[in-house]
Amino acid sequence: MTRRFVLATRNEKKRVELAAILGQALGEDVEVLTAADLDLPEVAETGVTFEANALLKAHSAAAASGLPAIADDSGLAVDVLGGAPGIFSARWAGRHGDDAANLRLLLDQLADVPDEHRGAAFVCAAAYVGPDGAERVHRGRFTGRLIRSPRGDNGFGYDPIFVPEGEERTAAELTAAEKNARSHRFLALTALAADLPPALR
Amino acid sequence: MTRRFVLATRNEKKRVELAAILGQALGEDVEVLTAADLDLPEVAETGVTFEANALLKAHSAAAASGLPAIADDSGLAVDVLGGAPGIFSARWAGRHGDDAANLRLLLDQLADVPDEHRGAAFVCAAAYVGPDGAERVHRGRFTGRLIRSPRGDNGFGYDPIFVPEGEERTAAELTAAEKNARSHRFLALTALAADLPPALR
Repeated sequence: MTRRFVLATRNEKKRVELAAILGQALGEDVEVLTAADLDLPEVAETGVTFEANALLKAHSAAAASGLPAIADDSGLAVDVLGGAPGIFSARWAGRHGDDAANLRLLLDQLADVPDEHRGAAFVCAAAYVGPDGAERVHRGRFTGRLIRSPRGDNGFGYDPIFVPEGEERTAAELTAAEKNARSHRFLALTALAADLPPALR
Repeated sequence: MTRRFVLATRNEKKRVELAAILGQALGEDVEVLTAADLDLPEVAETGVTFEANALLKAHSAAAASGLPAIADDSGLAVDVLGGAPGIFSARWAGRHGDDAANLRLLLDQLADVPDEHRGAAFVCAAAYVGPDGAERVHRGRFTGRLIRSPRGDNGFGYDPIFVPEGEERTAAELTAAEKNARSHRFLALTALAADLPPALR
């Protein structure tokens, strides 16, 4: 049976990644519409935690579409930056969504930071909001370290400078299947899928 | 009696501010040479705390000059960024010392952050290293909040967007005397001055 829901993102790469994870986690056909498909309004991300922003986005998408909505808020938490860029990861260089500028800025900021202090983790909060207002939110963490120059063409965001724990390749050198099997998004969405209200689970 | 020491900075505004605070704290004439005056070598700031970087700079200046050295490492710790820019404050936009770019980037990053979450503090670690290798380090904190557009022409760095607790003016709208009476640098250097080895105190 096919389940339909709206994903509160306009990012096509994220849609593909999230749909793959959710299909796997829910074990059934999943039809994913996005904020772009439905032309949903933009949401100001005024929360100061991943969870608050994921819930803001899911509430807005559910209200505007009348469909069950899933949203994630994700980012890279760098140890030596006290968890920044964090919720600001997508706008780190000042404008939303310029991956190349964000990555370049972070490398420049950390230029003098020695290898033993380059720990970081991708963090994801995944939220569900039902048409009835029911809400759920779960967090996932993908730990690793930052290298000094980008490698790999898969993935997006900071993937090319992030080497997961136990790996030598960057997240952008993993296949989508390898990344999806252990990523912050996988962990958060798997936990969320297991906790969805019966109608969607 | 005039005391001579070297200040491990190339920043002229910082020299003026530090010399004023130290003269006041030490209650005697203070002659301040700087890294620029003595053409001291650049130091890679590879520490990951304010204290570590202040000590690195003071050790390098003392070793290169044979004089007692004082260094500070200061920065702006933004609550919602988990303490960043922190030790990276002077290179936040990627290049060292571009105050205008650093300030603009921080405002852009925080554009969606509501007023109640814009708390921040200037932090300073002030370090002393003697020709004999003796070391001291003390920290000072200057708490306040960040506004959305710069105001004022005094001070430097992030002063134009920082409103100290109990103030309506920004740190760049305070006079040098007002700022020096309560700033992070004043607090750290006052504590350091009181703790200097007898020869310099």
